Amino acid sequence: MTAQVLKTHRMFGGVVQFWEHESLETKTKMKFSTFIPDGVVRGCVIWLSGLTCTEENFTTKAGAQKYFSKHQLMVICPDTSPRGLDLPHEHEGWDFGSGASFYLDATTPGYKDHYRMESYITKEIVGMLQSQFKVPPNRISIMGHSMGGHGAIVLSLRHPELFQSVSAFSPVSHPTKCPWGEKAFTGYLGNDRENWKNFDATELVSNGKKHLHKILIDQGLQDEFLEKQLLVSDLDSACHAHHQGIETNYHKGYDHSYYFIATFIESHINFHAKALHAL
Amino acid sequence: MTAQVLKTHRMFGGVVQFWEHESLETKTKMKFSTFIPDGVVRGCVIWLSGLTCTEENFTTKAGAQKYFSKHQLMVICPDTSPRGLDLPHEHEGWDFGSGASFYLDATTPGYKDHYRMESYITKEIVGMLQSQFKVPPNRISIMGHSMGGHGAIVLSLRHPELFQSVSAFSPVSHPTKCPWGEKAFTGYLGNDRENWKNFDATELVSNGKKHLHKILIDQGLQDEFLEKQLLVSDLDSACHAHHQGIETNYHKGYDHSYYFIATFIESHINFHAKALHAL
Repeated sequence: MTAQVLKTHRMFGGVVQFWEHESLETKTKMKFSTFIPDGVVRGCVIWLSGLTCTEENFTTKAGAQKYFSKHQLMVICPDTSPRGLDLPHEHEGWDFGSGASFYLDATTPGYKDHYRMESYITKEIVGMLQSQFKVPPNRISIMGHSMGGHGAIVLSLRHPELFQSVSAFSPVSHPTKCPWGEKAFTGYLGNDRENWKNFDATELVSNGKKHLHKILIDQGLQDEFLEKQLLVSDLDSACHAHHQGIETNYHKGYDHSYYFIATFIESHINFHAKALHAL
Repeated sequence: MTAQVLKTHRMFGGVVQFWEHESLETKTKMKFSTFIPDGVVRGCVIWLSGLTCTEENFTTKAGAQKYFSKHQLMVICPDTSPRGLDLPHEHEGWDFGSGASFYLDATTPGYKDHYRMESYITKEIVGMLQSQFKVPPNRISIMGHSMGGHGAIVLSLRHPELFQSVSAFSPVSHPTKCPWGEKAFTGYLGNDRENWKNFDATELVSNGKKHLHKILIDQGLQDEFLEKQLLVSDLDSACHAHHQGIETNYHKGYDHSYYFIATFIESHINFHAKALHAL
């Protein structure tokens, strides 16, 4: 369905806009934000946010629009889950349900009818980018932070034909082995742990899934979630073992916040611009 | 009193920090945030925020730290009023009392004991910059947004010896003639309108107050407050009539938000760096 604009703000020679539409996949209203530079748009990067975020965080805090404008790229930031529902346990914690979709299509009762975020991103958002926003075919890349870094990498490995390049800040890299992932996958996918592996970046790479482009990751070494939740080195090792290109940059002193993202966002946008403009 | 750090985040080769201290001027706890680049700090810019803001808004939304880091400058962002009090009408509206100090020393009952924001900025913050943060003497400039743009310009005209340069985004420029200013000045200063002129940028310039450096202003033409509240052209005219240097840049399509500030913050930091590094 065509999205309606709620708010527009001029910024860096383009416009930040907040949108709402009736989603066919989630069967709810969904919100997202965009930055669209003036003139010809040569491609789009999809940004997937982390736990507790909405469509707003990246747009207000990442300091990214200057670089999207420079490269004539738009960015679209979907919300992190459907809203306005009242499913079992949906609003009990910040790491499951509302604000915590993990970007997969759920199969459990209740959730399977609405938490269809993989289809929402790969079909509905990708479709809208071409139909409503006139992004040229194949000129789409994807990136994200934390749970959204997991989403970006997993979606790019499961749908490599859709995304020219993929990058992540502080991604949840081996969710079948961390508390956030175990809780979310149990709630959205049930108890079949073998099936969970289809939604885990480290397991996908270990099982031969590939993206043609190397994966770019930036990770702070002061990140309080690195050791127990993110497990970035597991993905790094799997990529090296299975010849998936990866560049992982560790940064001393940096944490899990948007202060970290803002510091290194320019290099990620340059990375995607190079891939998108090379077509 | 020495400020205590509450939170530290690494960013752009420096640190964002949130602080708290017991203020001698406001007789309350006060919070502020800083960005301090690694290495030698060559000066400091004080940022004054607008109505409803706290010490956090500029730090998370302006995208300024990259440029402060580049110029080896720190920035300090005080809160917009004392907190934790319960004065008459203090919490009734967003344009008076809490979050809306207008950066002056109040003279009305109740407020005069705590709303001493001019003294807080010009004595306590300036003093702390030199004693605790080791900013070299005279290496301080000031800027702000909206109510904070008013604060920056008025404080620089009333204390030209303290600030090497001054700039503002979308400043409240003639508060004695606009609803926000009339409400605030009545509440903080009482009914003597002649006295109000001592806290109004346009009136101060018209009465011969000067800053040696030209004032830099950026203003969006899509700003919903421009015509009724900000009255930037009144200050512009007074400066031209009274030979106060001013550069006012108007921008088509831009509004009153941080999206506007972020777009032009680099030019303001360059402006202050030039003044501070020229000493």
